[in-house]
Amino acid sequence: MATQGQVITCKAAVAYEPNKPLVIEDVQVAPPQAGEVRIKILFTALCHTDAYTWSGKDPEGLFPCILGHEAAGIVESVGEGVTEVQPGDHVIPCYQAECRECKFCKSGKTNLCGKVRTATGAGVMMNDRQSRFSINGKPIYHFMGTSTFSQYTVVHDVSVAKIDPQAPLDKVCLLGCGVATGLGAVWNTAKVEPGAIVAIFGLGTVGLAVAEGAKTAGASRIIGVDIDSKKFDVAKNFGVTEFVNPKDYDKPIQQVLVDLTDGGVDYSFECIGNVSVMRAALECCHKGWGTSVIIGVAASGQEISTRPFQLVTGRVWKGTAFGGFKSRSQVPWLVDKYMKKVNVICIEFIFEFVALAVVYRNSFDLTGNQN
Amino acid sequence: MATQGQVITCKAAVAYEPNKPLVIEDVQVAPPQAGEVRIKILFTALCHTDAYTWSGKDPEGLFPCILGHEAAGIVESVGEGVTEVQPGDHVIPCYQAECRECKFCKSGKTNLCGKVRTATGAGVMMNDRQSRFSINGKPIYHFMGTSTFSQYTVVHDVSVAKIDPQAPLDKVCLLGCGVATGLGAVWNTAKVEPGAIVAIFGLGTVGLAVAEGAKTAGASRIIGVDIDSKKFDVAKNFGVTEFVNPKDYDKPIQQVLVDLTDGGVDYSFECIGNVSVMRAALECCHKGWGTSVIIGVAASGQEISTRPFQLVTGRVWKGTAFGGFKSRSQVPWLVDKYMKKVNVICIEFIFEFVALAVVYRNSFDLTGNQN
Ligand SMILES: NC(=O)c1ccc[n+]([C@@H]2O[C@H](COP(=O)([O-])OP(=O)(O)OC[C@H]3O[C@@H](n4cnc5c(N)ncnc54)[C@H](O)[C@@H]3O)[C@@H](O)[C@H]2O)c1
Ligand SMILES: NC(=O)c1ccc[n+]([C@@H]2O[C@H](COP(=O)([O-])OP(=O)(O)OC[C@H]3O[C@@H](n4cnc5c(N)ncnc54)[C@H](O)[C@@H]3O)[C@@H](O)[C@H]2O)c1
Ligand SMILES: [Zn+2]
Ligand SMILES: [Zn+2]
Ligand SMILES: [Zn+2]
Ligand SMILES: [Zn+2]
Repeated sequence: MATQGQVITCKAAVAYEPNKPLVIEDVQVAPPQAGEVRIKILFTALCHTDAYTWSGKDPEGLFPCILGHEAAGIVESVGEGVTEVQPGDHVIPCYQAECRECKFCKSGKTNLCGKVRTATGAGVMMNDRQSRFSINGKPIYHFMGTSTFSQYTVVHDVSVAKIDPQAPLDKVCLLGCGVATGLGAVWNTAKVEPGAIVAIFGLGTVGLAVAEGAKTAGASRIIGVDIDSKKFDVAKNFGVTEFVNPKDYDKPIQQVLVDLTDGGVDYSFECIGNVSVMRAALECCHKGWGTSVIIGVAASGQEISTRPFQLVTGRVWKGTAFGGFKSRSQVPWLVDKYMKKVNVICIEFIFEFVALAVVYRNSFDLTGNQN
Repeated sequence: MATQGQVITCKAAVAYEPNKPLVIEDVQVAPPQAGEVRIKILFTALCHTDAYTWSGKDPEGLFPCILGHEAAGIVESVGEGVTEVQPGDHVIPCYQAECRECKFCKSGKTNLCGKVRTATGAGVMMNDRQSRFSINGKPIYHFMGTSTFSQYTVVHDVSVAKIDPQAPLDKVCLLGCGVATGLGAVWNTAKVEPGAIVAIFGLGTVGLAVAEGAKTAGASRIIGVDIDSKKFDVAKNFGVTEFVNPKDYDKPIQQVLVDLTDGGVDYSFECIGNVSVMRAALECCHKGWGTSVIIGVAASGQEISTRPFQLVTGRVWKGTAFGGFKSRSQVPWLVDKYMKKVNVICIEFIFEFVALAVVYRNSFDLTGNQN
């Protein structure tokens, strides 16, 4: 491409300060260095984690930065030594890298990867510990190794999932975080089996994806818990069979669920980020085997607690990051599942997600960021 | 037997009040009712849980009672409808029942059994909700459904494991709690695999059994953590390869272990009952896959806590009761393993345990209780 090796000036939504509106700016995006890929972002959604960092509550948040980590685009150019993607490839940038070489990748036990973590955590690229974004020479930090609220972004090659070029990017962008996380929490982390009783705390994008995952896994009851009853209508389309609004009860919500299920649920998922709900999600699990998976990201410094007897009597407390999916290997597989509509990600559902994402996007006035 | 159907008067160690010396008394033991078994106890050890209830710190502890739950003996007589054991059978009374009929037993997911729990929790027998122990007409509560600090005891038939009559009862009595718990925590709950790095917090009977289980499972490093360095010598015989005394360090113990193991252990076991150590045991686990198993029983009302990020980044928090072993089915299997010495419970090791148990027993002046 004509832009290869050149600095590209494009629009990006810059977060200058916590909790202040993002500003659409002209940003300079440097060419990719060794092991890096520059991507033209075509669609990006907004996830809770962007909003969390934007709010200033994340003590590791760096400003000014370009947020965004749930997106899809096309490779514009690649740096030295990049072999697995080339200009023109359709890709999803992934905040979980997969290098296939580190202790984590080789363990066969986790999707976390250690390769570029120190750089992405510091808002820079591995190669020279510098940012590729700047405005009039002033650097702007990267975010989660993705920074998709920009028309062009630079990411590490180990963070790029190459997908089917036929896939509609406006939909599959959602497989970059929320939808993949929810599905994977059910399939990979909890391994929900047919007939299981499932409780989902929080029916946002992640909770709805958990519902769809649980439905696909054959759960017999899927109980949705949300303080916003407006979520219940859309949740039906995702497989939720029963609804509980904690505000309708005087009892603690864990007790409500234990009573509803003759002793507790088989699996519960916390999709909010609230530490008291995390406790409730564990304690509503059935003695002997109930497993609770934390997906929500709590505010910094907050802690979960419970009586250890909850665990001694057989409950299991887990968590998940990106639903346990290995990003470069499995995001393309998820896209294929979606393309084949093999009872996994129904197109209507994805439309619902996109609809949600657009609502968020508008509230951040990012529409101008997309072309 | 001549005693069948009769009240038996025998010696028992009675706990009249919390924290007061046990008193060796003549106790009347009523005949077994329907579904009950009266056992002549030949050997009993002392477990931490007896001492905990005795201390008065367990709010559910009932006094006066007869403690003890780690024992072996011979069936003296059986009540109506008891078919699986008969007088003369060698048995281990088990505080975890196994009825094979309740929701728990049929789940295939847990060794907990719900059948007699409400009765044993209330210190009585299911049939008439009364105790079988009395002194001059005054009832004495049962404890954990076993009450083995008595020459004769009455237990529910679902709590009796019939074992090989050749097995030395003075040794296999230890399979009634501590040794089985430690082995099972490794084999059933954590499922430690060859090459794994294991940390054990607390090197009492339970911790030593965890060490032996881990060694048998092929762990590559077994790190013993205890504040009592005297435990390290005996622990070597059980497979512990490295020792850490938290008192020797200024850093938090989880940091010490993370540093020792290039990122954390694969499995950790808390064998103390201390909630801060439970936290340390979780937090010394490797990101991505480390699993921590709580075995210790904490004082009532105490809570465990951690940052949820510990779980979101892949650590798993579990617990175990009786090591996940199904009592009636699997205690006989453990006894067989011991008898065949198939690389599982070496006789020397069992001797060590008995030696430990005797120390405890003496300190409670229970020797007169054995014949
Ligand atoms: N672990 C991961 O890899 C990962 C990935 C993506 C998102 N997340 C986290 O997952 C969480 C959910 O993300 P989302 O985008 O779906 O969020 P969202 O804001 O769209 O949804 C949260 C839902 O929870 C409900 N809720 C809030 N408080 C509640 C309470 N006390 N009881 C019941 N319901 C309550 C809200 O009404 C809302 O419907 C966030 O914390 C996000 O950071 C984690
Ligand atoms: N979950 C179950 O089914 C089950 C079964 C049996 C026993 N238990 C529990 O397991 C625990 C251990 O039992 P045990 O009989 O082996 O006890 P024990 O008293 O023989 O051993 C405890 C060990 O922990 C060490 N210790 C104490 N505080 C420590 C600290 N802060 N750091 C490091 N080490 C410390 C002691 O020096 C001792 O060696 C008890 O809480 C008991 O109630 C649970
Ligand atoms: Zn996200
Ligand atoms: Zn890696
Ligand atoms: Zn015990
Ligand atoms: Zn049962």
